[in-house]
Amino acid sequence: MLHCLIGHMNGAGNLMDFLDEPFPDVGTYEDFHTIDWLREKSRDTDRHRKITSKSKESMWELIKSLLDAWSGWVVMLLIGLLSGTLAGVIDLAVDWMTDLKEGVCLSAFWYSHEQCCWTSNETTFDDRDKCPQWQTWAELMTGHAEGGGAYVLNYFLYVLWALLFSFLAVSLVRVFAPYACGSGIPEIKTILSGFIIRGYLGKWTLLIKTVTLVLAVSSGLSLGKEGPLVHVACCCGNLFCSLFSKYSKNEGKRREVLSAAAAAGVSVAFGAPIGGVLFSLEEVSYYFPLKTLWRSFFAALVAAFTLRAINPFGNSRLVLFYVEYHTPWYMTTQLGKYPVLEVIAVTAITAVLAFPNPYTRRSTSELISELFNDCGALESSQLCDYVNNPNMSRPVDDIPDRPAGPGVYNALWQLALALVFKIVITIFTFGMKIPSGLFIPSMAVGAIAGRIVGIAVEQMAYHHHDWIIFKNWCRPGADCVTPGLYAMVGAAACLGGVTRMTVSLVVIMFELTGGLEYIVPLMAAAVTSKWVADAFGKEGIYESHIQLNGYPYLDVRDEFTHRTLATDVMRPRRNDPPLAVLTQDSTTVEDAEALIKDTDYSGFPVVVSRESERLIGFVQRRDLTLAIKTARQKQDGVVSSSMVYFTEDAQQLPASDPQPLKLRRILNLSPFTVTDHTPMETVVDIFRKLGLRQCLVTRSGRLLGIITKKDVLRHMAQMMNQDPESIMFN
Amino acid sequence: MLHCLIGHMNGAGNLMDFLDEPFPDVGTYEDFHTIDWLREKSRDTDRHRKITSKSKESMWELIKSLLDAWSGWVVMLLIGLLSGTLAGVIDLAVDWMTDLKEGVCLSAFWYSHEQCCWTSNETTFDDRDKCPQWQTWAELMTGHAEGGGAYVLNYFLYVLWALLFSFLAVSLVRVFAPYACGSGIPEIKTILSGFIIRGYLGKWTLLIKTVTLVLAVSSGLSLGKEGPLVHVACCCGNLFCSLFSKYSKNEGKRREVLSAAAAAGVSVAFGAPIGGVLFSLEEVSYYFPLKTLWRSFFAALVAAFTLRAINPFGNSRLVLFYVEYHTPWYMTTQLGKYPVLEVIAVTAITAVLAFPNPYTRRSTSELISELFNDCGALESSQLCDYVNNPNMSRPVDDIPDRPAGPGVYNALWQLALALVFKIVITIFTFGMKIPSGLFIPSMAVGAIAGRIVGIAVEQMAYHHHDWIIFKNWCRPGADCVTPGLYAMVGAAACLGGVTRMTVSLVVIMFELTGGLEYIVPLMAAAVTSKWVADAFGKEGIYESHIQLNGYPYLDVRDEFTHRTLATDVMRPRRNDPPLAVLTQDSTTVEDAEALIKDTDYSGFPVVVSRESERLIGFVQRRDLTLAIKTARQKQDGVVSSSMVYFTEDAQQLPASDPQPLKLRRILNLSPFTVTDHTPMETVVDIFRKLGLRQCLVTRSGRLLGIITKKDVLRHMAQMMNQDPESIMFN
Repeated sequence: MLHCLIGHMNGAGNLMDFLDEPFPDVGTYEDFHTIDWLREKSRDTDRHRKITSKSKESMWELIKSLLDAWSGWVVMLLIGLLSGTLAGVIDLAVDWMTDLKEGVCLSAFWYSHEQCCWTSNETTFDDRDKCPQWQTWAELMTGHAEGGGAYVLNYFLYVLWALLFSFLAVSLVRVFAPYACGSGIPEIKTILSGFIIRGYLGKWTLLIKTVTLVLAVSSGLSLGKEGPLVHVACCCGNLFCSLFSKYSKNEGKRREVLSAAAAAGVSVAFGAPIGGVLFSLEEVSYYFPLKTLWRSFFAALVAAFTLRAINPFGNSRLVLFYVEYHTPWYMTTQLGKYPVLEVIAVTAITAVLAFPNPYTRRSTSELISELFNDCGALESSQLCDYVNNPNMSRPVDDIPDRPAGPGVYNALWQLALALVFKIVITIFTFGMKIPSGLFIPSMAVGAIAGRIVGIAVEQMAYHHHDWIIFKNWCRPGADCVTPGLYAMVGAAACLGGVTRMTVSLVVIMFELTGGLEYIVPLMAAAVTSKWVADAFGKEGIYESHIQLNGYPYLDVRDEFTHRTLATDVMRPRRNDPPLAVLTQDSTTVEDAEALIKDTDYSGFPVVVSRESERLIGFVQRRDLTLAIKTARQKQDGVVSSSMVYFTEDAQQLPASDPQPLKLRRILNLSPFTVTDHTPMETVVDIFRKLGLRQCLVTRSGRLLGIITKKDVLRHMAQMMNQDPESIMFN
Repeated sequence: MLHCLIGHMNGAGNLMDFLDEPFPDVGTYEDFHTIDWLREKSRDTDRHRKITSKSKESMWELIKSLLDAWSGWVVMLLIGLLSGTLAGVIDLAVDWMTDLKEGVCLSAFWYSHEQCCWTSNETTFDDRDKCPQWQTWAELMTGHAEGGGAYVLNYFLYVLWALLFSFLAVSLVRVFAPYACGSGIPEIKTILSGFIIRGYLGKWTLLIKTVTLVLAVSSGLSLGKEGPLVHVACCCGNLFCSLFSKYSKNEGKRREVLSAAAAAGVSVAFGAPIGGVLFSLEEVSYYFPLKTLWRSFFAALVAAFTLRAINPFGNSRLVLFYVEYHTPWYMTTQLGKYPVLEVIAVTAITAVLAFPNPYTRRSTSELISELFNDCGALESSQLCDYVNNPNMSRPVDDIPDRPAGPGVYNALWQLALALVFKIVITIFTFGMKIPSGLFIPSMAVGAIAGRIVGIAVEQMAYHHHDWIIFKNWCRPGADCVTPGLYAMVGAAACLGGVTRMTVSLVVIMFELTGGLEYIVPLMAAAVTSKWVADAFGKEGIYESHIQLNGYPYLDVRDEFTHRTLATDVMRPRRNDPPLAVLTQDSTTVEDAEALIKDTDYSGFPVVVSRESERLIGFVQRRDLTLAIKTARQKQDGVVSSSMVYFTEDAQQLPASDPQPLKLRRILNLSPFTVTDHTPMETVVDIFRKLGLRQCLVTRSGRLLGIITKKDVLRHMAQMMNQDPESIMFN
């Protein structure tokens, strides 16, 4: 089931020099293991140096080296083009399929409602939504467009289509690509921090996620496409990595590309290229050098440009508002064991309850867009049913505060119901096994609440403009309160509380709305919601998700302030058997093989001798296994009793002794060490900043133990009174 | 001359426990030395732990701990308030003094030209700049407002005022605060990377920089206030750090505050809070954790808000456009030796040449604002003197391309002259000893060039709309080319080429202009100008400046790809005397004192014995000196022949021996080590990411040598074929 690209063709590093033919598996990382950033980085430098020195040899090598230098930008261009295209196609498909639930275009069945009536000549400007070519299912089947029977039939077919779409989505995910479910952002964060999850960004996941995303969004479930689009863009990034050995063979470089791809994903999801770069920086990326910043910027730009070119309506900003939910808490219900049934049930409830209320029936993006809008004179929305003062003849743009009409009060009730419905159904939609995002639904909840508050304040200001709070800034007959702004701020606050984004949130909001002048209230909302949410718990939704899934993610935000030392965390513990080590010149091939067989550590320290325990280097289990195997096959005279030498020069041995096995080349001569007195705070910092996989502990030059990333994570969980066993993988 | 705050009250760390009364100098860093980030961080954690454990003791301690937790936000609030206020005051003062060069307001001499005529009742809307209260000097002195004599008198007094202002500015800087010159950004970058420059952010610098900035900008020199405002904001940050021991006693925490202050500075300089945060992140900061991101955001918000509240005109966005130059290259001229004379000469030339040309006489911000503007129907600028088609009656906003009138051609010539003048005078203004910034003048150069190209393209499109390049997108009679947009893109490109900013540049540009829809051309300009400029050399203006001044700055952008190892860089070199070390239990007080006297290293490794050379720890020179001095004074029985013990338990000595001196408490038991085989690439990475000051080199547990930050910088310079001695300080 794992159709994966990550780590597939990982290069061989030092071993390459040692063996003539590289084995496909040499030096790769295993699934659910963590990469060593320093090692990846130094491997890339080696590669770079080779290319640079070769480039002086011939013209062809020079061209190759130039191509290599530009390959980063080429990959960014390709990612931008493909993710922009995919986002455009998803937009169009969702548009069409959402309308398909209500009716069909007679002139061309592949037109959405809007396209159908736009191409029709009989459409007037005032009633753009009505044209003879577009028929609801009831109209088509019974000939009646109005009446109770038509309403029931439309209702029934609406629910039926929704069920069909969601059934298809959940089945496709289950059968073909289980990794396509959810938004993928927590997993991408984990992958970017150096974890390997094979197949998570594979071609198959890309294909199935794109298709099921369209189905899931079209079914009208309370979920969205923005988060999943980040996953789709990262799949594109991974796909193009395989074109260049620079990226496909180096897990560190690959992650630089994926960081930029995440930026492109947000860029197309919201039409917010700068917001995308900041989202990647603030929210998902782990290692984000300035070079990646510039490349992300380029990828986001190309992606936004491509999407705009594809978008046939030209109103790219509003089209980008779409339903979006994300899976933050798993509610453990009985239903959870039957994912297909669960999806069907939630879809049925959503469709049945959403249809009667105009604010839940339409797509969430349309809802948000209406809530953000200010009531101009020409606005026909129910929300703008104010009592107009007939004596007034002011310019259209500057309408003073007016008393609310019956439509507004009606809308308020419907919005309140929609708010409750949205909050509740969201909780149940969260953990389902289909692609789902979170941005737009949280924004919708915030926007509804904000608009309700806005209208309330507006009416208070109108009816009580002598109250002290209004007196100073609101003269009667002036336009003091803009309920649309309250909705915008509410949306930002709600999204900020859920994800704990700040800067990227504000940038996305104003790229989305164009409301540059509202930057101060938006910033205030972002900071306040962060403070309030932090009072309940420091983790945003993605971190919670990572913790629930037990991914080995070393969060840069967690501050470690406990007084423990490296000696308290290292293995072996007090009563454990001693550390499994190799000696530099007194181990036999047999001993080494026994060590490999008896333990499952991913590497072994090499010391001078068991007595002095002075550290020489570190050897990877994989490299050692492979080296012994190869030597036994190809090198004559290497037998079980052969000595293994890690020293520079093997001693002169008597001729009777079997031929020795020299393994200095697979030895890492610069393993990372700390002393046993090093505070764990510093150790955590080193693991985070250098992206280590393990670290050896010494005291006055003597090897005492080892600390792995998993040990660090376990220790941190323990110190925060969490179950250390919740960190499952490493 | 060094009126400094940095490092003044640095805490004593371990030594605090050892000595009863802390000495004022214990554990501080010396001037022009580099801090050790890991040490600062662990000192802060110690402090934090103490407060947390104390907070459980009493209500008062709990309140104190809460205050401590919130002190970060309080400091941000204060920085925002003060830097916003200062920026507002500077704006108003510059406004008034710039107008003072031309005339005076009779009704109230402290009014600027604009304020004077705004308060006048006799001003009409069309001629806002003319009112009887405002009189030019010629008018006041001779009674004639027009005519050749008045022109010459005005010209003469204009130059005289300019000379007076610039003389005052350069004298104040020379006499009171030499650190107030330049923009300060390169130095702030260096300080943020961990270098100590005492007095650079002191109160005195703050005061003098604020006053001289007003004088320098008002004198009309080709320099600006945006860069210096960043320095001013950082001085504010440093000032408020001294209120809280959390920040004043920890150089690492102090730098977090300074990063946020830099963001507040850009925020008030351009009225661009988000751009400010990104500038701090992309351009100046070294260590920028997410917590600092949020705090910077808050400080920038408060600062922008304060400035807006102070600004009496309400048009805060355009007011923020002001002259801005920065000191990137020092031109070594004979004049350079006489800074006052140099300033006077350059001011005289600037004033004499700038007055006759309308585009150089006005303030650069006004120029940019005019160049960015599109020509509406009501525009009276010379740049908008187009030949109107009398038959047209279209809405005002949508004016088609028209042929240029004589005014436009005239303006083109003047702009071309202004372009040459600006470029040349900039080069000479660069290295002067007065506060000066770079943003706005580079933007002006770019905007002039962009506008000229824009008008050329517009006229080509009008006269040759059958050419292939115009054919497809420009119908005759349509508005195809907007010269103002070309000016905006040109400004962004020029500034981007100078500073190599990308994301922050685009955000600043659109916060400045509100032109969110032009994000794609702006992004394209930023990326292209970066590519082109990188082809000439990888360094932006701030990095070049840092290098010219020889600051020990480890740039995160420089990639180190050479194949050297730690053993090639460490000291002692092959023929050097052996490393100066202390032994854990065989050194006498006399020996230690001799070592301190004979060497000038800032610290000494402690080993088990000279024979085994196994590393125990590292002791700071300052701590050792102070500990011995104190012990000699206060501890009876400590004499020259006393043994110094770094071990946990001193051996039982015969009673006849002098009392031993136990110094384990000042020993750093977790010094950072690497093996001699570690690639320098990894070592550079470790120094950068962990902010180390020095690192010890070992082989199989044996101490071989030491690498300091200065050694790393020297080695990097050597590898890039630069003079390693150009790194002057450490």
